[in-house]
Amino acid sequence: MVEDRKGKLRSALVEAAESVVAEHGLAALRARDLARTVGRALGGLYTVFPDLDALVLEVNRRTLALFEAHVGVLPQDRAGGRQSALDALVALALAYLDFAAAHRRRWRALFEHRMADGGAPPDWYVAEQARLFRHVEAPLAQLRPDLPESERALLARTLFSAVHGMVSLGLDEKLVSLPAPVLRAQVETVVAALGRGLIQGRERA
Amino acid sequence: MVEDRKGKLRSALVEAAESVVAEHGLAALRARDLARTVGRALGGLYTVFPDLDALVLEVNRRTLALFEAHVGVLPQDRAGGRQSALDALVALALAYLDFAAAHRRRWRALFEHRMADGGAPPDWYVAEQARLFRHVEAPLAQLRPDLPESERALLARTLFSAVHGMVSLGLDEKLVSLPAPVLRAQVETVVAALGRGLIQGRERA
Repeated sequence: MVEDRKGKLRSALVEAAESVVAEHGLAALRARDLARTVGRALGGLYTVFPDLDALVLEVNRRTLALFEAHVGVLPQDRAGGRQSALDALVALALAYLDFAAAHRRRWRALFEHRMADGGAPPDWYVAEQARLFRHVEAPLAQLRPDLPESERALLARTLFSAVHGMVSLGLDEKLVSLPAPVLRAQVETVVAALGRGLIQGRERA
Repeated sequence: MVEDRKGKLRSALVEAAESVVAEHGLAALRARDLARTVGRALGGLYTVFPDLDALVLEVNRRTLALFEAHVGVLPQDRAGGRQSALDALVALALAYLDFAAAHRRRWRALFEHRMADGGAPPDWYVAEQARLFRHVEAPLAQLRPDLPESERALLARTLFSAVHGMVSLGLDEKLVSLPAPVLRAQVETVVAALGRGLIQGRERA
């Protein structure tokens, strides 16, 4: 019974926090406001979350899961050829762009959040992040079966970072801001070139 | 005489602001502290800068100039062939990585700063930023002479964003953090693949 009440409070807090992040961004999140939103004293929050970081990590976990659901509906690479692996890489990059554009503040929160103690996030959260890189590793394994798995895992992260840079600065209103269709075409051009260059790199090696 | 005193105050403020940004980051910059550092009342700052934004833009202009000096010493692409253009593109990306690693806080300030009114920075600053993209456009013109100049200018910005993403997340201690030599090798691999893929894209077109 107590567990049930705690479960409800937890859900209410996560939903309240998610709304604030989605509407106003991570910087607007205040423990006191959240407690008020769910009709509890500040101490109530800490009966279900050890600290505000734990609540933010839960919000971010849900954002990662939403992205994974978004990626899950991409056409699967059944043919298994190089061209389809290349197409899969481009489709993933475009899915990332679309997701970021549709959920800007929640997506930015994934990168803005820092643990209060300046330390690393807990292992379970790091594992959640790492799981997403597998979606990049799968087409890479077809483009570059010659690379050791550890090398491919590293390359998957670097490719993600490159796509993140294009999406992040492209959506930003500051330095490289681009209209949506132009940005899509640019991401497509660059990721396709990257895939072709990686295939060619194998042939040269 | 008054102009001379104003010039000295301006220099002292810029140097004080640059130190704060370099040591503690942009978020630590306070007009009141700067005025105290240069031995003036707060109003003194506003006799030489219209607002704090103008001072930050001057600090950022100096950071951009420092990067441009850093890029200026790269071996020039005199041979003019595709391979040397490809090498030039990789060298530029590595120069960006090295600069960011050596001047992390000043470099981050270039991306963190937002005008207080939420508007665009002044034209002179936008022009300073745009000038840097020419360093990317030059090798691109040799890799893809077939592309219209406007297309190449766009691609130069997107390539910059991709490299920025690799550098930014790679140097970050959070998501993709990598040891320096590993990050260098990754940037080299990905930018070289990108260059090869762009050349191949031309041959296909």
